[in-house]
Amino acid sequence: MDTKKNPLIGIIGGIGPYAGLDFLRKIFSNTRAVKDQDHINCILISCPSIIADRTEFLLNGERCNIENPARGMFESAQRLYRAGVEYAAVACNTAHSAPIFRPFSEMVQEYLPGFTVVNMLETCAAFVKESLNINHIGLLASKGTYKSRVYHEYFQEEEGAVLIEPEEQGREKIHEAIYSKQFGIKTYSQPVKPHAKNNIIYEIYRLVERGAQAVILGCTELPLAVDPRDFSVPILDPGLLTARRLITLAAPEKLL
Amino acid sequence: MDTKKNPLIGIIGGIGPYAGLDFLRKIFSNTRAVKDQDHINCILISCPSIIADRTEFLLNGERCNIENPARGMFESAQRLYRAGVEYAAVACNTAHSAPIFRPFSEMVQEYLPGFTVVNMLETCAAFVKESLNINHIGLLASKGTYKSRVYHEYFQEEEGAVLIEPEEQGREKIHEAIYSKQFGIKTYSQPVKPHAKNNIIYEIYRLVERGAQAVILGCTELPLAVDPRDFSVPILDPGLLTARRLITLAAPEKLL
Repeated sequence: MDTKKNPLIGIIGGIGPYAGLDFLRKIFSNTRAVKDQDHINCILISCPSIIADRTEFLLNGERCNIENPARGMFESAQRLYRAGVEYAAVACNTAHSAPIFRPFSEMVQEYLPGFTVVNMLETCAAFVKESLNINHIGLLASKGTYKSRVYHEYFQEEEGAVLIEPEEQGREKIHEAIYSKQFGIKTYSQPVKPHAKNNIIYEIYRLVERGAQAVILGCTELPLAVDPRDFSVPILDPGLLTARRLITLAAPEKLL
Repeated sequence: MDTKKNPLIGIIGGIGPYAGLDFLRKIFSNTRAVKDQDHINCILISCPSIIADRTEFLLNGERCNIENPARGMFESAQRLYRAGVEYAAVACNTAHSAPIFRPFSEMVQEYLPGFTVVNMLETCAAFVKESLNINHIGLLASKGTYKSRVYHEYFQEEEGAVLIEPEEQGREKIHEAIYSKQFGIKTYSQPVKPHAKNNIIYEIYRLVERGAQAVILGCTELPLAVDPRDFSVPILDPGLLTARRLITLAAPEKLL
């Protein structure tokens, strides 16, 4: 394969496995292709057994001596590197928190020359700043993401960004929409149950009522439940923005 | 990663891209897992740009000087090998035809020691022989698969196997269910259109009327359209059987 002409895109998945799968599907479905051969060359690595729980690490890492997930993410990156990958992304929101993503990026920079990692949250923040030019941004996410405040690292108050999060009860409803064993998206995703969908739609409207000019779906499960076209404000999927960014880097003429 | 304890499964995908994605989903959904870390370590490579059209090659390869898809499949295998894969499969029915699969396997054996490729059609044939003990087998597939007679290589008349294929009109209906731009599964897969679904269900019943004791869904798109539990005879998905075989090889205790 002429990797000059056909750069290889890599996805560090497994966190969780279905989020990685969904990320790869976004690359496929955003590629201009009428036959198999038109599609972009990609590799998805899904090695969840070597990557510790991200939220657990952020909340209890030091106290409970939990390994930094950065190590397993880096091992996944090494394997992609050996397979020939040039541009990669990590298919998980919480993994982008500084205590995880910073050491990961440092190891990549030191040991994997020419391996570019596109930061999903940075990509989302850049899109909001450059294309939307707004500063009140609603955020729907899992409890772990709120607690770890990972989005606050990328949308900084000093720069004028105001992140609007659901109130306590709303966070609970979103958490249930993702995790409930009865109707949550992690258990029922094809199709998503109406109960989960309604929880999310209601909380999007609540955020808009409270002044959100756009709403970020800050958990890889949420985009499975709602269609952004159904709302009057921009609904942002960081995974989708990053998939499109990877296509732009590897083969800009193929971006749909 | 301790690859003794956690062997890495590889999927040679891209032929087509969505078939590879669906194969990986089958590994995930057949794994006993309650949290991310329980899932099996996998890599999916999807490099369609380097793998020539399989049917085209089988029908017109020599006349039109089309490169053997085996070369690009082998290059994909090499990359998986460098990433540490031990057990792999090829997510495409037609690629298992002898003119493609034989040279591919020979290259793997010669250059990639310790890299085991599970043959999807051999796995399906072994299942029919060992678990079903029947000899009249219906086959639903694309026109290319019928023409290339790839299933006849694995279900041999000398061994008593009788492959029952749809008549001319039925083949056309299955081909449309897969390829039609108006309602085919390659264009509409989430959800599959009723027109495509009905075509397939009707042809399954026709094969059963003509004596089929089981029906093979011999094209990676077909399992997206029907639920095997809806029929009185076994409906076999070679991809599913192979996904389960890979789990059995890599981590038998995790087979759901």
